[in-house]
Amino acid sequence: MSEGSGGAGTTSARLPRIAVAMGDPAGIGAEIVVGALRDPEVFRACVPVVIGDAGVLGRSPGWRGAEPRIVRIGDVEEAHPEVGVIHLIDLANVPGSLRLAVASAEGGRASVEYLAKGVELALAGRVEAVVSAPLNKEAMKKAGFHYLDEYEYLSDLCGVDEYTVLMVTRRFTLASVTLHVPMREMANLITKDRVLMAIRHSDRAARAAGTPNPRIGVAALNPHAGEGGTLGTEEVEAIRPAVEAARAEGIDAHGPYPADTFFMTAREPAYDVYVGMYHDQGRIALKLLEFGRATTMAEGLPVLFCTVGHGTAYDIVGKGVARWENMRDTILLAARRAVTRRQE
Amino acid sequence: MSEGSGGAGTTSARLPRIAVAMGDPAGIGAEIVVGALRDPEVFRACVPVVIGDAGVLGRSPGWRGAEPRIVRIGDVEEAHPEVGVIHLIDLANVPGSLRLAVASAEGGRASVEYLAKGVELALAGRVEAVVSAPLNKEAMKKAGFHYLDEYEYLSDLCGVDEYTVLMVTRRFTLASVTLHVPMREMANLITKDRVLMAIRHSDRAARAAGTPNPRIGVAALNPHAGEGGTLGTEEVEAIRPAVEAARAEGIDAHGPYPADTFFMTAREPAYDVYVGMYHDQGRIALKLLEFGRATTMAEGLPVLFCTVGHGTAYDIVGKGVARWENMRDTILLAARRAVTRRQE
Repeated sequence: MSEGSGGAGTTSARLPRIAVAMGDPAGIGAEIVVGALRDPEVFRACVPVVIGDAGVLGRSPGWRGAEPRIVRIGDVEEAHPEVGVIHLIDLANVPGSLRLAVASAEGGRASVEYLAKGVELALAGRVEAVVSAPLNKEAMKKAGFHYLDEYEYLSDLCGVDEYTVLMVTRRFTLASVTLHVPMREMANLITKDRVLMAIRHSDRAARAAGTPNPRIGVAALNPHAGEGGTLGTEEVEAIRPAVEAARAEGIDAHGPYPADTFFMTAREPAYDVYVGMYHDQGRIALKLLEFGRATTMAEGLPVLFCTVGHGTAYDIVGKGVARWENMRDTILLAARRAVTRRQE
Repeated sequence: MSEGSGGAGTTSARLPRIAVAMGDPAGIGAEIVVGALRDPEVFRACVPVVIGDAGVLGRSPGWRGAEPRIVRIGDVEEAHPEVGVIHLIDLANVPGSLRLAVASAEGGRASVEYLAKGVELALAGRVEAVVSAPLNKEAMKKAGFHYLDEYEYLSDLCGVDEYTVLMVTRRFTLASVTLHVPMREMANLITKDRVLMAIRHSDRAARAAGTPNPRIGVAALNPHAGEGGTLGTEEVEAIRPAVEAARAEGIDAHGPYPADTFFMTAREPAYDVYVGMYHDQGRIALKLLEFGRATTMAEGLPVLFCTVGHGTAYDIVGKGVARWENMRDTILLAARRAVTRRQE
């Protein structure tokens, strides 16, 4: 495990090795991976090992105007941090005929294979984090992927089912108690235990990111925070008890607050972590404030897994206009978090 | 009915007479009514008739630095547009001992009496609109008010139960299919008929506001718009059929769209009206983009009723710092809408 410090890094700490999964091969994944790996900052922070398809990467418009080399490797230990070089575990799993910007079973299957390979390496301790370019759920479904999302898949691979998905931005982090569940069933999942778990995960993630005493704000579920129980009982029966239990554990948790004015405070964040109750509640605010600048990750899983907070962008794929900064920032965040996890 | 045109208005059209209810007497209602009625623009647009309490208005910090007169009137026809004069129907229903910034049964009862008087005048055709300063639901509840909100009360007084509540801002209008209902029960109310009604009301309101062919965007209910039915069926069974039915009627309706990215487009509005499915969905976005600059109104009721889009602001009451511009803009919007309603 000495190859990290053997690279061109300016830090004396051993650089974390990070698997970078190429994502859906019909989307902007290859472009933004190539773009991000042209930034020297990435190589000062980690040793990236790309998991993907050499053909797709080679055709990517991310190459234009630059001369990076693809170096196929058979083992992650062959990778070292070198600007302009993409060390690739080539799964060679995309037919040359694959059409860009179309959700296909071939593309979906390939993207899941990158993910699976990354997680396998992480569980074996051969990489310290897995970062994935955008996945396409429709393509994955065509390939027979039956999980609700990549986190459910990961939690199954890891054999752990208590985790919280976070979206991390420069200004604030968003946690969500529920995610990919029909709204009709969602309220049934708002229990004291689940809310408390999300608060604990939020606190732990913020501490790991370098905030010593994170302020955790918790949204209400119902309009006007249930208005004393007349517009819903979850605030009284689940959310407030969870906030109180968290406070008893020493977590600086607050709420529940009516969601409409609560998320308004995220503009100049009053809290380090905003805990929402359902998918759109926090994401409506986050996408208004920080669209394209978020990293999605899970707290609670043994594998450190991060993705960019946007999708496969089929509308711009192959045009060479995809912004790769979010991919770079996601790799950098994973690298920082990998180092803090060593102490945990 | 000639006193409107007998005023100082610069328009030749007969000015609409508008009841301005003082709202919760413990809140900022009196201040912002007084503030708004110092603006000559209000008197060029309408003949305001304030319904409130002379004692509360007289003590309001809104008077400071100005010399307006309160003229008590017994009949709305005595009012005429005169800057600096508040023509008041004095219900004299607030004890001098009422504490500011506290939700009380006395305050709640008084605020409902202003509202009821305004609606009575509107139903009798004596005013063309009712504008209310903020109400306090807790105070109203203490006074025995058993309606979910002021719109339910109004619809009961009017004997009409098909209406849609809108929040109107300078940039876009927000409609909501459901409002003050527990999230646990909300999805049951997302039916094709209700969504179609909200789209029709949205279209009608936008046309009345001067948009000839309004674009109506409709949010999905479930995360990722239900992802083809796997994350909820309301998009397939209710919302899309409602959008299609509206289009068959000639309404330029679009959707359903995943809520998180849909409301993102409200920053530079892609639609004249955004139709949300539940209270917080649209309000999270609206409060981030247009806090304190919205007018709430109902489309579908025989009485034109508008309120400011903020609350009683107990934290700043009596300090003379409450912003009255939203109240003025709400009166002006009611005045414009009153004139267009004459043609309907």
